[in-house]
Amino acid sequence: MSQPHRFRWLKGHGTHNDFVLLPDLDGSVHGALDPAFVAALCHRHAGLGADGVLRVVRADAVGDPYAVKALDQGAVWFMDYLNADGSVSQMCGNGIRVFALHLAQEGLVDTDAPLAVGTRDGVKTLTYDHDGLISVEMGVPTLLGETYVDIAGHRWPATHVDIGNPHAVAFVDDLDAADLCREPGYDHGVYPDGVNVELVVRRGPGHVAMRVHERGSGETCSCGTGACAVTAAVAALDGTGRPPTYLVDVPGGQLRVAWDGRSAAVLTGPAEIVADGEMTWLGDKSR
Amino acid sequence: MSQPHRFRWLKGHGTHNDFVLLPDLDGSVHGALDPAFVAALCHRHAGLGADGVLRVVRADAVGDPYAVKALDQGAVWFMDYLNADGSVSQMCGNGIRVFALHLAQEGLVDTDAPLAVGTRDGVKTLTYDHDGLISVEMGVPTLLGETYVDIAGHRWPATHVDIGNPHAVAFVDDLDAADLCREPGYDHGVYPDGVNVELVVRRGPGHVAMRVHERGSGETCSCGTGACAVTAAVAALDGTGRPPTYLVDVPGGQLRVAWDGRSAAVLTGPAEIVADGEMTWLGDKSR
Repeated sequence: MSQPHRFRWLKGHGTHNDFVLLPDLDGSVHGALDPAFVAALCHRHAGLGADGVLRVVRADAVGDPYAVKALDQGAVWFMDYLNADGSVSQMCGNGIRVFALHLAQEGLVDTDAPLAVGTRDGVKTLTYDHDGLISVEMGVPTLLGETYVDIAGHRWPATHVDIGNPHAVAFVDDLDAADLCREPGYDHGVYPDGVNVELVVRRGPGHVAMRVHERGSGETCSCGTGACAVTAAVAALDGTGRPPTYLVDVPGGQLRVAWDGRSAAVLTGPAEIVADGEMTWLGDKSR
Repeated sequence: MSQPHRFRWLKGHGTHNDFVLLPDLDGSVHGALDPAFVAALCHRHAGLGADGVLRVVRADAVGDPYAVKALDQGAVWFMDYLNADGSVSQMCGNGIRVFALHLAQEGLVDTDAPLAVGTRDGVKTLTYDHDGLISVEMGVPTLLGETYVDIAGHRWPATHVDIGNPHAVAFVDDLDAADLCREPGYDHGVYPDGVNVELVVRRGPGHVAMRVHERGSGETCSCGTGACAVTAAVAALDGTGRPPTYLVDVPGGQLRVAWDGRSAAVLTGPAEIVADGEMTWLGDKSR
């Protein structure tokens, strides 16, 4: 865990999915992030606390093969994203909006044009909306039939949706009645690598509310792919009469998802940068 | 929420009870802390995240009547402590060790002598132990008879202990079986202002393990007064054969409590400072 030097950091969030940003434009500040450093930094009590770290780096300044590929596809910037446990993450629909906001606030991009950002899930295209929100093209949702989730002794039918990662979307009567502090039960035959579980209620036409239990993380304030999976499940029920966009209330705020039933879902939501500073990371000697 | 200037901050913790430290030695940096600023800063997702803020200030540099009184009683330093929700807190057994560690690391105190720190619960005396741990004189535990707590449909007998704040200490069979993500039920006649609930198992002679649900905060990683309350309840059961000190395992580490059955309990534990930097607080425009 060696990052004893002083470095710039920012803290930001998208619907309370929160991140430490580490600007490292030319790759000279941090180099490849040490997973142990990221895990220590993201620890909620023994570190600074975050859902993950977003290293902000030019695609041509990092040797990662995904960055090289992104550069080939015209992306100037690469989102080097590590989860709170230090593991590599492909993509984060809430994190990439915070990443894009930072680039805009630093004057590094033209906010009147679409922005291509390289990620380990490919190049993502973002747009800066006039209302201050930011949109990002997510994956294509695939509806894979019915399954179930078990919560506190009750079994709910659920829709199996894949959008790069697996989801089980269950329509419930009351969001608050469900207890998500333990992992829901699920069909291990359908989900051999675990599943993200969304509980959903309708709020009105084109408007739903959800809670989410993310595999490996527990209940979280928001999940971008979860909002897209929920929208796909709801849109399937709404059929031809479905609205072009859905409002999706999450515990940490509100997202909007547009899906035409075939192509990539577009996720729109807020992004905030709340602090900007420098730090010397001393680390936790007790760990 | 007006603290737009750049200021120094540190992040520290004691057994994972974590704090943002704001050095303000002569009171000129922050002045009286704005509760809205503290609440925003401590928000786990939309802020930096912490259990509270410790403003580090000379007792003669702050107009707080508690600081004036502490100064009269010989305390040079005052721990201006606000909870994560921005409310004023009297005292924190884990926080004051982090506060004392910071003073020592800055070379502001003589670590070979007892240190008097002013708090809103009076002047507390700390000692720097040779093993790197820090000890602090807490309140006097008072045993107030039997009560109960209800958890997930099961009622456990509990010991009512007061140590400045109220506790219900329940001996359970299995710490992990209990579900503390919801507030336990308790006797509102005994605890009209709520109660901190500790679940305890014995680990061996003079060694227990506990989990704690703090009123207003939910389950936490550690609670200094809780460890003292637990020790008082266990010592009462152990009677005249009790050891002079108890090891108390908490989810965030290990504490040690010495209690002679009459006077103040002495809490001993680790303290860590993990980051030291500067920041400009931009705040969360979405709030």
